[in-house]
Amino acid sequence: MSQILDEVLAANQDYASDFNKGDLPMPPGRRFAILTCMDARLDPAKYAGLSEGDAHVIRNAGGRASDDAIRSLVISYKLLGTREWFVIHHTDCGMETFTNDIMSDLLSSSLKTASVDASGWHDCCEGPGCTDGKYINWLTIKNQEQSVLEDVLRIRNHSLVPSDIPVYGYIYDVKSGRLIEVPEATKAGQAN
Amino acid sequence: MSQILDEVLAANQDYASDFNKGDLPMPPGRRFAILTCMDARLDPAKYAGLSEGDAHVIRNAGGRASDDAIRSLVISYKLLGTREWFVIHHTDCGMETFTNDIMSDLLSSSLKTASVDASGWHDCCEGPGCTDGKYINWLTIKNQEQSVLEDVLRIRNHSLVPSDIPVYGYIYDVKSGRLIEVPEATKAGQAN
Repeated sequence: MSQILDEVLAANQDYASDFNKGDLPMPPGRRFAILTCMDARLDPAKYAGLSEGDAHVIRNAGGRASDDAIRSLVISYKLLGTREWFVIHHTDCGMETFTNDIMSDLLSSSLKTASVDASGWHDCCEGPGCTDGKYINWLTIKNQEQSVLEDVLRIRNHSLVPSDIPVYGYIYDVKSGRLIEVPEATKAGQAN
Repeated sequence: MSQILDEVLAANQDYASDFNKGDLPMPPGRRFAILTCMDARLDPAKYAGLSEGDAHVIRNAGGRASDDAIRSLVISYKLLGTREWFVIHHTDCGMETFTNDIMSDLLSSSLKTASVDASGWHDCCEGPGCTDGKYINWLTIKNQEQSVLEDVLRIRNHSLVPSDIPVYGYIYDVKSGRLIEVPEATKAGQAN
């Protein structure tokens, strides 16, 4: 048995030993959702003050508004009643440290079999530097303000997202623990 | 200003006021990643004993091994060094309460403009009940053991996932706070 598995199961036993949240309803009590990065330094429950039952938390590499994040957000409002959403990227993000080309090189031996057609990778590149959607779009980030704005806009303008859900744009500072607004994004995400 | 936004920012100010984690490195210290559901009742940091800096946490509706989750996992190991992964679904999941057909009906007015071709939805249905990939695959769940197994297998067999990363399959019980193994999934996810 792996040490990590041991540790996780021991920690879980502790958590469950005095668990008293067994009666929480399925819909988020505070009716909001956060889309943020998978980064290990981020604890959205802590940085945003969430208790179990409060809010949906969606996380991926970068906290990007991928098709899958939008799938989750649409389910969040339509079936489970959230009415405000946050997009929260962060400083010192791993997604700033590479490009689609670098990742293609790193994965060159396997990439041939992971083209868009061969294995269902669909968020393919369309911008310059990509060859006819042959490569995966890793959704890298060049500038945090810009990526937050881009993602808020993608959500705001998506045909399945209702216009009355405000989408707030923030950057989490890993040095200070602070949430810093991206005013342009929050403005773009205003409810209509 | 919304009450939720007020509350989140106040909670963040509290968190940042005695923040002492500003020097954590980017790669997860305990070198593992968890893929789990966005459900509000789940706090992976609490149920698995994570501190800031320990592990990547990827979350979407259902905790499914979508293309985007696999994008995140591949970045997690290739650029940031994780070496063990968990797939953790949970009891009483919202994804068990509907089907692709039900969601299509709920969204019928907007769905016409959100077909696979029109707006980049790519995880389209291929199974029975779907019409030539015309509808979004919402990745609903019929049975938790089965969905965990399915997702562990999808990760295990993906061309970009190395064979030496073990993938463990678990179900989180929202009534008790306990992690329950899906032995068949963990077995299927064994490293080779």
